[in-house]
Amino acid sequence: MKHQLPKGFLVSTGSAGIKRPGRADIALIYSESDAACAGVFTQNRLKGNPVKLDIERVRSGKGRAIVANSGNANVANGPRGLADAKEMARIPARILGVPEELVYVCSTGVIGAAMPMEKIRPELKSVALRPGAATLEDAAQAIMTTDKFPKMSSRTITVGGKRARITAIAKGAGMIHPNMATMLCFILSDINIGSGLLDTSLRSAAGKSFNRLTVDGDTSTSDTILILANGLCGNPALKAGTREFEMFSAALDAITLELARMIASDGEGASKAIEVVIKGAASEKDALAAAYAVAKSPLVKTAVYGNDANWGRIMAAIGYSGAEMEENKVDIWIERLKIVGKGVSKGKDKEASALMRSKKMLTITADLYLGSASERVITCDLTEEYIKINAEYRT
Amino acid sequence: MKHQLPKGFLVSTGSAGIKRPGRADIALIYSESDAACAGVFTQNRLKGNPVKLDIERVRSGKGRAIVANSGNANVANGPRGLADAKEMARIPARILGVPEELVYVCSTGVIGAAMPMEKIRPELKSVALRPGAATLEDAAQAIMTTDKFPKMSSRTITVGGKRARITAIAKGAGMIHPNMATMLCFILSDINIGSGLLDTSLRSAAGKSFNRLTVDGDTSTSDTILILANGLCGNPALKAGTREFEMFSAALDAITLELARMIASDGEGASKAIEVVIKGAASEKDALAAAYAVAKSPLVKTAVYGNDANWGRIMAAIGYSGAEMEENKVDIWIERLKIVGKGVSKGKDKEASALMRSKKMLTITADLYLGSASERVITCDLTEEYIKINAEYRT
Repeated sequence: MKHQLPKGFLVSTGSAGIKRPGRADIALIYSESDAACAGVFTQNRLKGNPVKLDIERVRSGKGRAIVANSGNANVANGPRGLADAKEMARIPARILGVPEELVYVCSTGVIGAAMPMEKIRPELKSVALRPGAATLEDAAQAIMTTDKFPKMSSRTITVGGKRARITAIAKGAGMIHPNMATMLCFILSDINIGSGLLDTSLRSAAGKSFNRLTVDGDTSTSDTILILANGLCGNPALKAGTREFEMFSAALDAITLELARMIASDGEGASKAIEVVIKGAASEKDALAAAYAVAKSPLVKTAVYGNDANWGRIMAAIGYSGAEMEENKVDIWIERLKIVGKGVSKGKDKEASALMRSKKMLTITADLYLGSASERVITCDLTEEYIKINAEYRT
Repeated sequence: MKHQLPKGFLVSTGSAGIKRPGRADIALIYSESDAACAGVFTQNRLKGNPVKLDIERVRSGKGRAIVANSGNANVANGPRGLADAKEMARIPARILGVPEELVYVCSTGVIGAAMPMEKIRPELKSVALRPGAATLEDAAQAIMTTDKFPKMSSRTITVGGKRARITAIAKGAGMIHPNMATMLCFILSDINIGSGLLDTSLRSAAGKSFNRLTVDGDTSTSDTILILANGLCGNPALKAGTREFEMFSAALDAITLELARMIASDGEGASKAIEVVIKGAASEKDALAAAYAVAKSPLVKTAVYGNDANWGRIMAAIGYSGAEMEENKVDIWIERLKIVGKGVSKGKDKEASALMRSKKMLTITADLYLGSASERVITCDLTEEYIKINAEYRT
């Protein structure tokens, strides 16, 4: 599927050689007119300097551009870091003739190293001088770190007789955990919507997708979701409670869920994505705790990697999650195959193993039969490759 | 060091072929006279049948024997499981002529499979018929699952003119996390002490050792620490608040900490044990949360495996732990080498890497300079070998 840019958005990319020479590592997304803007950011107390900047700037509810780089996260590198982040906004702002406060900055990569501004400065100038020179896929490539593939998703909806486009790119493969992960997601739309409503729909979508995603339980310092909606498709501004707003929200939900699943599939070293569904929990809190315990368990994740339907590890993880459970009520399924009934094996281990072998995306469902709360968490398996990637990341 | 059995304790072992033929998989520890008994058990809501039994039985404060097997954990295998656990106590009880309520059962291994009682029954009878036929090291071997070496520790103290011996064995290598882990620890002593005081000292020792230990964050269904003190050394019964009781408690602390460190060193696939020390936290809760976040972070653990002093991952883990932190106050050390000062790199990465390469037990210390609370958590690094062990455990 071709992921077209919404009206009025222009992309350019460049290679500053931040980490390795030759590789695209800077992306600039520019809107020809002011856009409504909303953002969701990492909950880590240690925040990247770009995140600190963006959190301030998004209060205006407006944006014109996003500058992103890979290779250096601009985190924990002393007082110069914040000045560097500001300069990374100022350079394209001056060239594009927009207020620097409307430019957002996103950096991911190594923590604790000074930004190589002497490399970034000239390349960023050159990138800002040629808006539209690159495709959205180029941008999706430029923001990758340990990602194996670029991540894009888009939807088109008709509102007030106009076709509005919503197109997003994301990156993220490791250190993925709510709220949230070394993940970036930029959502662009030409729909006309106020920033308050945009914020509401973004938070709701993120809550059901990126905030239900865990790769290794580590929460990054730099996670950022930004949405820009410039209204150039020409619809009358969306209003809360209307069918149009619902359509937009549903499209946003679908895009963010699709991207979250792509991130899980691309989890560092992952051979499989996993969705853990807990049903029948006594409370929402219990459902979420149990789903996360299963999704984060290294023993469950390695068992999935080994195509071993090791439901004992699933039961044990639910058991230590803090969620209420009664051993002799629990049913567990791999996909639609019931492997545990009332807490006891159904003797389907071989069948389940064959089923697991055949899937790249696996759903594990457990019903606790204690209530009506349910939750879904997205993760991936844990493999030797994860260790290799992360033991050698800086070397 | 030779770990002698305290007076009046006899050990025997056998091979029932529970998982693999030929390997010792049953151990029986028998005290010739009634012993004061205390226990600490897993907090997992899914508990092994032996754990359910022992929790009931330890209320009496008395014990005569412990039966342990490896290969099958007797967990989540239906209503027969509890009857099987009871039978495993009854068989030696009848042969040894002691009340079955004074016999404790500990099973570790696969979850969800029926106990192969047809194999266990005859072998356990034979084991019970020859108390004293095996050494303590034989027992430490028999209870191993994925352990690479048997774990023993002992101390001798002089109380009321008598030499009292405290000797312990433990097993545990994976699924290690408070409270607690697939870990077993049996502590035997010929000291004379009441069961109430014994319980107090055991809980205190476990709190500072096994309950500060995490290998992979998974809490097992079967973790058990049992202590039997038969009083045969002949000292007047220990009293609370005395120097003798303090000596005993100190010995218990030392033994449990030594065993916890052995378990971390033997963490599944581990190349290094790690101690994470958080100082200067605003509260004890913060100190513990930060220490666990660092100790559990797969990114920190893989960096240690790669001898990479990746302090950014340490800072990030503290940041998402929920503990109060101010980025520009934090100092971090690897052993005694300061690698971060006031939140910024000291440029010691190469020196730190060489230091890491030279150590099998590594201490990571962070001072938050926000208060006076400190905590220590013991863990190990994360390697490809962990994945191999756990992806192939049942196959």
